[in-house]
Amino acid sequence: MTSATAQQRPGGPDEPSTTAARLLEAAAGAFAAKGFHATTTRDIASRAGLSPAGVYVHFSSKEQLLHALSAQGHGQALAVVRDAAATSGSPTDRLAAVMRAFSAWHAEHHAVASVVQYEFPHLTPAHRDEVLGLRKQIDEVVRDLLREGRADGSMTVDDVRDTALALMSMCIDVARWYSPHIARTPAQIGETYAALGPRLVGARQH
Amino acid sequence: MTSATAQQRPGGPDEPSTTAARLLEAAAGAFAAKGFHATTTRDIASRAGLSPAGVYVHFSSKEQLLHALSAQGHGQALAVVRDAAATSGSPTDRLAAVMRAFSAWHAEHHAVASVVQYEFPHLTPAHRDEVLGLRKQIDEVVRDLLREGRADGSMTVDDVRDTALALMSMCIDVARWYSPHIARTPAQIGETYAALGPRLVGARQH
Repeated sequence: MTSATAQQRPGGPDEPSTTAARLLEAAAGAFAAKGFHATTTRDIASRAGLSPAGVYVHFSSKEQLLHALSAQGHGQALAVVRDAAATSGSPTDRLAAVMRAFSAWHAEHHAVASVVQYEFPHLTPAHRDEVLGLRKQIDEVVRDLLREGRADGSMTVDDVRDTALALMSMCIDVARWYSPHIARTPAQIGETYAALGPRLVGARQH
Repeated sequence: MTSATAQQRPGGPDEPSTTAARLLEAAAGAFAAKGFHATTTRDIASRAGLSPAGVYVHFSSKEQLLHALSAQGHGQALAVVRDAAATSGSPTDRLAAVMRAFSAWHAEHHAVASVVQYEFPHLTPAHRDEVLGLRKQIDEVVRDLLREGRADGSMTVDDVRDTALALMSMCIDVARWYSPHIARTPAQIGETYAALGPRLVGARQH
């Protein structure tokens, strides 16, 4: 009963998408513990409570699991950044919202973000290109806000590309130093970066 | 002759410190390619042109090699940051110098910096504490500059700890995105961050 309950998810334990989600979680844990190269399909199966053959029903290789994790993580991060940029307010307000959401996301998802960042070279060239495409879309959201703020005179930005990258770096690096053991919550970290981001573009938040 | 020349370093190929340096370089390359967990002592020996027994003359385990890489990397980064902070000029000038040196260092040493950051959990608790001690010393250099700039009115800093961390994040994240294939040199990256850093503390560089 306890074991069945632990594995039960909305939709039931045998619903395909639920099993796939459990496999992704298992893969993220195994990659974080041992690295992509040292992880076997058997490790992932065992963490997910499946046989190795059960993994192949959903994913044809370790690389497919890494790719699914990368695509899902970058897709979520892009959605979070787009939603934040689409709120109402000045370009500075919206930049603050992006910094708040993107940094909090990297605190909440620090483990999978670290895996995806570090194991990126193990993706196939086509999958690397796909992930780079998602990263470019995230960058573009921030670059657009800086261009808008520069155009209406509310921001001072020397180089849009460099400044956008530095803003994203502050948030992405949260995944490196964040630990659930620290005193600050992801939401508090979000507030810190919402205040710091506008400073880098010469626009203080009120 | 060619093979001997390729392996020859100042001090001669059999000089102990040179062999140790070659082993560290080999370990960094192997860890970067396969991850710490999947790397064997034999992999490292083979990259360094030694027998596995030859590794044990210098390092008793893989963890000792990771520790030596971490200690060396963090020690170098601390020295670079301290030297930059000790230059003459205003707190803002010295912060710019720290940002220039620390970001350029992470571009130049991006491969080993990535390994050391990601494989940190594989250090023994005592070695993790040692590395955290070096990181705290790096942080302290930046925090001292912010306190000095705040005291003389040349900087506007809400929270010294958060702002110092965000400044360091911009530079540390360079190791994630930098590649020798990109158009910009480490020195050019250094100039970008020397200009951006002072903005985060409300002090534009002249």
